[in-house]
Amino acid sequence: MRDVSIIGLGQTVVGEHWDKSLRMLGYEALNSAMASARIERIDALYVGNMLSGELTKQEHLGALIADFSGQRGIEAMKIEAACGSAGAAFRVGYAMVAGGMQDVVAVMGVEKMTDQESSLTTSALAMAADAEYEALQGLSFVGINALLMRRYMHEHGYKKDDFAQFAINAHANAVNNPNAMFRSLITARQFADAKPIADPINLLDSSPIADGAACVILAPTAMAREFTDKPVRVRASAVATDTVAVHDRRDPLYLEGGAISAQKAYAQAGIGPWDLDLFEVHDAFTIMSALSLEAAGFAPRGKGVRLALDGEIGIGGRLPITTMGGLKARGHPVGATGMYQIVEVTQQLRGEAGANQVRDARLGMAQNIGGSGATVVTTILERA
Amino acid sequence: MRDVSIIGLGQTVVGEHWDKSLRMLGYEALNSAMASARIERIDALYVGNMLSGELTKQEHLGALIADFSGQRGIEAMKIEAACGSAGAAFRVGYAMVAGGMQDVVAVMGVEKMTDQESSLTTSALAMAADAEYEALQGLSFVGINALLMRRYMHEHGYKKDDFAQFAINAHANAVNNPNAMFRSLITARQFADAKPIADPINLLDSSPIADGAACVILAPTAMAREFTDKPVRVRASAVATDTVAVHDRRDPLYLEGGAISAQKAYAQAGIGPWDLDLFEVHDAFTIMSALSLEAAGFAPRGKGVRLALDGEIGIGGRLPITTMGGLKARGHPVGATGMYQIVEVTQQLRGEAGANQVRDARLGMAQNIGGSGATVVTTILERA
Repeated sequence: MRDVSIIGLGQTVVGEHWDKSLRMLGYEALNSAMASARIERIDALYVGNMLSGELTKQEHLGALIADFSGQRGIEAMKIEAACGSAGAAFRVGYAMVAGGMQDVVAVMGVEKMTDQESSLTTSALAMAADAEYEALQGLSFVGINALLMRRYMHEHGYKKDDFAQFAINAHANAVNNPNAMFRSLITARQFADAKPIADPINLLDSSPIADGAACVILAPTAMAREFTDKPVRVRASAVATDTVAVHDRRDPLYLEGGAISAQKAYAQAGIGPWDLDLFEVHDAFTIMSALSLEAAGFAPRGKGVRLALDGEIGIGGRLPITTMGGLKARGHPVGATGMYQIVEVTQQLRGEAGANQVRDARLGMAQNIGGSGATVVTTILERA
Repeated sequence: MRDVSIIGLGQTVVGEHWDKSLRMLGYEALNSAMASARIERIDALYVGNMLSGELTKQEHLGALIADFSGQRGIEAMKIEAACGSAGAAFRVGYAMVAGGMQDVVAVMGVEKMTDQESSLTTSALAMAADAEYEALQGLSFVGINALLMRRYMHEHGYKKDDFAQFAINAHANAVNNPNAMFRSLITARQFADAKPIADPINLLDSSPIADGAACVILAPTAMAREFTDKPVRVRASAVATDTVAVHDRRDPLYLEGGAISAQKAYAQAGIGPWDLDLFEVHDAFTIMSALSLEAAGFAPRGKGVRLALDGEIGIGGRLPITTMGGLKARGHPVGATGMYQIVEVTQQLRGEAGANQVRDARLGMAQNIGGSGATVVTTILERA
């Protein structure tokens, strides 16, 4: 297997792009990634996306975006794993280069969610859950997370306000990210007063729906310096799954897929969790940050929230997370989110994170979660 | 890169499965493929599917079917390339094993189309076309193919009835396929009298919407004999693309994606088209058979129909096609079709095609087409 590196990256601002079509967002991210790798041609394109069919009546994004971006003819396809789609697409692109099937490939995440009424978007997002056993009962995606959060508070003795630091930290970091959707600080008081969405989840526990596209270019590490002075090595890429319906799990508060995925990734990279300099968690809701930190081995069961309460998660902390704003404040275009995470880890490892730069960042991890933990993709990157 | 073989295969009957859910169809195909390889555990599952979101409000099929089939925890994801979804999924599964990322994987195609009103299915299928420049103008998917067929007849001087042999041959072969949807002979007179769908396409030019799932198990060839006495080697797997909108092509009657895909596959296998003993074409409409035969190098431009007229395409002919009934008569569950094609080539190479057995079949090819040629996946298999 060949060692693989990221040689280019691109992203659009995350937000409400009512003036841009899905293919245009994809083109902008791909074009910018190719420019950063100084290339005009790629061998293949793997597109992570969840909702293009439901929300824009367009499937077949691989061929569509390849052609619209001037790459007619190349291998292209879409990969879907709910909110973990872009992470899964990265896994495919990585495998294609590592295995020698392709040399220079683009992996993209793209999603366009804000052109529709929010009721339609809410029902579309429920397709990440179990259509027959969850959605059909009227349970929305935020509803499932609210049940998890309530149970976690009950089991482990937390108050609602104990989750505030996840959101406060994400917003603080988004202030310095020009591509973030919400570049504004929030306070503990604002968190406490925020409008309820599905109790105990309120507006500031929740990541916003958004439009956006992000992209990286991959190549064999042996070729990487032809394209960039700052290659970033892929040290691990691992996918694991769990039941889609939360009620089928042995323990609904344990992300078994997250744990398997992280352990596989640590084994591939030959490291342990505390060797990492930063961790982009999938903070779709604050409860997901806590569960993800625990599954990835940073805290025992029920102690994920403590990392936030103890001030460990800021840029200068023991484990910086959501360093560019996370899903919460950078925004959560669901099928694109996993690629934003990977792009942001890459920015950190290239020393291009500006005011949010984690000092001497050498190893970074992103964990992209589909549904309520049914698909978990873990990616570990290293400064070359 | 490791040599890869198919070590097991499974399929459901193609038809209207109103009594079975999507996940149940997927389970049945996977379970049967695993039984044929005598295994109880797989390392990963790649699911080809196009319409689960639109028609059953369920995405996230990778995790869903893995869990429902007793494979909780494994790597799993969905791959989409319109009607070429299952072929593209096969390409991913093949790459994962060839590159050494996984050892024993399942690749599945699954689709459930018949639970909905046909108007919804028609608009869902239009997502394979260009939503903004084709579907939005009111052009359905069969409408696009009707324009292609009309133009082909005009350019090359064919009459409508000249296409009949593609349908007659497919139906004749389906009679002997227990998994086919339409196990009935049709005559040239019935073809001539069939109800128009989108002139010049009539009911017997068109493949039917259907439910179904098909699956193969892949493993390194070096391990294949541990699982089966009849491994079938994967000699080539290639994906190429073209514009999604047909009006953007240099020549709408030339499947450039089909040609690139076939040429890549021939190069990988080190063969030419006439080395093949059979060819599963993507006969969604009779015109697509003609264009596909030309793009794959079996006939010059405008001469694809001649192969049918000259009686070359039957089981005993120079180039047997749609040997188990094709999309036309086996049925066309769109995101599953590419896997039915691969399963059927495998049956031929294992000598398990019953009354439709192609004598001494050693090399077989399947070409799975997404949209009107925007994604083309070519797979070449060889009897071990």
